[in-house]
Amino acid sequence: MKVVTPSHIEEIKSIVKTGKVLIDESDRFSYSFDGSFGTFLPDVVIQTKSVEELASLVKLANREKIPVYPRGQATSLSGGPLPVKGGMVLDLSVLDDVLEIHEEDLIAVVSPGVLTADIHKAAEKKGLMYPPDPSSSHVSTIGGNLAENSGGPRGLKYGVTKDYVIGLEVITPEGEIIHTGGRTVKNVTGYDLTKLIVGSEGTLGIITKAILRLLPKPPASETIMAVFDSLVDAGSAISKILSSGILPAKMELMDQASIVAVENYEPLGLPVDAEAIILIELDGHPLALKDEIKQAAELCYLVGARAVRIPKNEAEKAEIWKARKLVSPAIVRIKPTKISEDATVPRSKIPQMCARLQEIRDKYNVHLVVFGHAGDGNLHPNIICDKNDKEEMRRVEQAVAEIFTAAVELGGTLSGEHGIGTMKAPFMEMELGPVGLDMMKRIKKVWDPNNIMNPGKIFPEKGQKLELS
Amino acid sequence: MKVVTPSHIEEIKSIVKTGKVLIDESDRFSYSFDGSFGTFLPDVVIQTKSVEELASLVKLANREKIPVYPRGQATSLSGGPLPVKGGMVLDLSVLDDVLEIHEEDLIAVVSPGVLTADIHKAAEKKGLMYPPDPSSSHVSTIGGNLAENSGGPRGLKYGVTKDYVIGLEVITPEGEIIHTGGRTVKNVTGYDLTKLIVGSEGTLGIITKAILRLLPKPPASETIMAVFDSLVDAGSAISKILSSGILPAKMELMDQASIVAVENYEPLGLPVDAEAIILIELDGHPLALKDEIKQAAELCYLVGARAVRIPKNEAEKAEIWKARKLVSPAIVRIKPTKISEDATVPRSKIPQMCARLQEIRDKYNVHLVVFGHAGDGNLHPNIICDKNDKEEMRRVEQAVAEIFTAAVELGGTLSGEHGIGTMKAPFMEMELGPVGLDMMKRIKKVWDPNNIMNPGKIFPEKGQKLELS
Repeated sequence: MKVVTPSHIEEIKSIVKTGKVLIDESDRFSYSFDGSFGTFLPDVVIQTKSVEELASLVKLANREKIPVYPRGQATSLSGGPLPVKGGMVLDLSVLDDVLEIHEEDLIAVVSPGVLTADIHKAAEKKGLMYPPDPSSSHVSTIGGNLAENSGGPRGLKYGVTKDYVIGLEVITPEGEIIHTGGRTVKNVTGYDLTKLIVGSEGTLGIITKAILRLLPKPPASETIMAVFDSLVDAGSAISKILSSGILPAKMELMDQASIVAVENYEPLGLPVDAEAIILIELDGHPLALKDEIKQAAELCYLVGARAVRIPKNEAEKAEIWKARKLVSPAIVRIKPTKISEDATVPRSKIPQMCARLQEIRDKYNVHLVVFGHAGDGNLHPNIICDKNDKEEMRRVEQAVAEIFTAAVELGGTLSGEHGIGTMKAPFMEMELGPVGLDMMKRIKKVWDPNNIMNPGKIFPEKGQKLELS
Repeated sequence: MKVVTPSHIEEIKSIVKTGKVLIDESDRFSYSFDGSFGTFLPDVVIQTKSVEELASLVKLANREKIPVYPRGQATSLSGGPLPVKGGMVLDLSVLDDVLEIHEEDLIAVVSPGVLTADIHKAAEKKGLMYPPDPSSSHVSTIGGNLAENSGGPRGLKYGVTKDYVIGLEVITPEGEIIHTGGRTVKNVTGYDLTKLIVGSEGTLGIITKAILRLLPKPPASETIMAVFDSLVDAGSAISKILSSGILPAKMELMDQASIVAVENYEPLGLPVDAEAIILIELDGHPLALKDEIKQAAELCYLVGARAVRIPKNEAEKAEIWKARKLVSPAIVRIKPTKISEDATVPRSKIPQMCARLQEIRDKYNVHLVVFGHAGDGNLHPNIICDKNDKEEMRRVEQAVAEIFTAAVELGGTLSGEHGIGTMKAPFMEMELGPVGLDMMKRIKKVWDPNNIMNPGKIFPEKGQKLELS
């Protein structure tokens, strides 16, 4: 990798006619970190709305072998935007001009810097819905969601970001602008480059526009909270409901540690002696919901729920979901550092995964809190620690490695929705095997021969290990 | 490409210990055609259930540069399974042993030779549903559906084959066995090889097992038939319903030519003077349907339907859907050859596409019938002709080329669900552009350096043109 020279900066400035080129250290510092670990100072940061200028910058970078790091709001929990090899950061959060809703085609056309929550709002104004709902949607850009293939609670019923992307405008690693897919839901013309690029974590190109599929907004929703004395029973309730013909929009789990953390943070009257609660949201036609909510409650009792609460109005409903939303802020009060994992298992393995997580917690004596999207097997084991305590962080590293191993051994995956980034790269071969990993590397190599697009991500470097300290 | 020599046959026989090696011309002849055009005799046909033997055969083929043509039931309408360069056909319809439904995980595990309809039945027995429903599902294998990313009427609400594939076992073009994805719906570990391989029409490897996502089966369904004096009004009804918050499972269109053809074939009392009928199926909770069906009928009247029929029982419902099912058999009675296209446009462009199709019909004086999945923009313009009439077939070739151009000009795609195969390869660059096509070719080249997997498909050869005569 080459360093950025003063003559590169001159050339960059001559390309960027409509935006800004940031070279002061104080400006560049804000681009040196993300929602995960480590700080890496880029050599230069560029803000421009012009796709042509961005393409020219990539051409320059490719010619000169300068690393290129596209970046949205940098809420990534896996290190996706970190400029680990220095070089050029492209701040795509400024590319926020396009947010069109085409009702007749049930699609949205968006530029990458638009906040995901703004797409939700724009669609809802027209009676439509953009289903993917990562918890960070009020602060994260759609570009970041596309790069990482973000999930969210509604993944259970509606799937993830990728399931709603039908077309892209992309700058290739050689600086060419291509269009993949289009405005039709059905499209089998050649290889699916759209779904290859979504979730490739910025390593195969820069997304400069996306066409998203929308759905009619369900007219109503209902919520249930069920309280369990046993985590296994909570798992059974989830299976039972899903095999009864009911498909909830969300099915969230909070373990005892999360319940206690939230209740200490803000007393909501949660049952701190329960081993687990599950929160269910059903959406659809109001008449169907009335019936389904009764059925779901009965099924919860049938497998041993000690209580089921059905809120009577919007205020009560909001209070129940507040409990789930407070988990993240509540647990960081315990210790300053939060390692948020997203190891995902087949949903039938949720009780076994919970048992493995408890073993890992005890073995390494770490503060482990478990919550997340239990309905689709996507748990969020969070380890609460202090990154300045080196001895503790070494135990945390071992615990995290063992969480990944447990997920893969149970037939699951390293990452359900946060991405591989830098943190999980060392574990890729464990899940994919050497040939599977090689087939991915071949694509990277032939698309990005000079390895300039987000280098240092996804693919492990020789001897690379997880390092949190 | 090398020819298959007697010593290759000896080596093939030594590899295939558990299956059959067919070399008689009479045996090979059955493998020389599919549901599309042309006959191409393979040198050898292999039937084996052993994935290890198949992998060894691919290793041999890769070493000796022998073309490999995987094949299911060969119902393809675009030439996917045709052994256009001779070589080896692998008959995967014998690989039909695995059909497991894992209710707790909401998944099915299947081998490629299983009929799609058998997956439907197995899932339904457990109260679940495998949504993709290509019209050929009673005779087509899931392996073929996976290779082509098949659609079907339920694509409107539920999406296509790709949307339900979460894991694969694949033999690479170099004969290695890899596993992609897994048993979890959320998985962002590395590039999405699963969705790259599904729909790659057998050019990137051989699928030997698949993990499919299932849904709870909706408890009820209802049907509506609406009759229109104007095709444009029928199009408006579709948009109106979709933007009202109702998402039907199916929304099928039949134009006047299809109505007349069916009525001549079997009198069902269809309105032969109407310009279009649309058939709608809603599924979901029975209480919701009761209300939605009324709304949908009102919306049809609002935009000018002259009649709306809601069947009162299962027998009446079946009769309505029979009309749609009879289109294909009815139109081939007119002339022996049927060119079934699947050019797809953004749904708002359906009325414009219908107008373009009428112009093309008149310009080239061809017998054009239009029906299909109007709700998702996936029309099926069918040209009825006689392949022995060379003069007519030349007009048909021009008409087909112009249908593709019209679809692309309206922001659509060459193929919504039938695939590119041999027939549409010459038109790929028109839709994808030179760089977009090149990015696909790069993947093909680096995965299959000797170009042995289904050669002659998708990518146009120099100067290749559409030839039907």
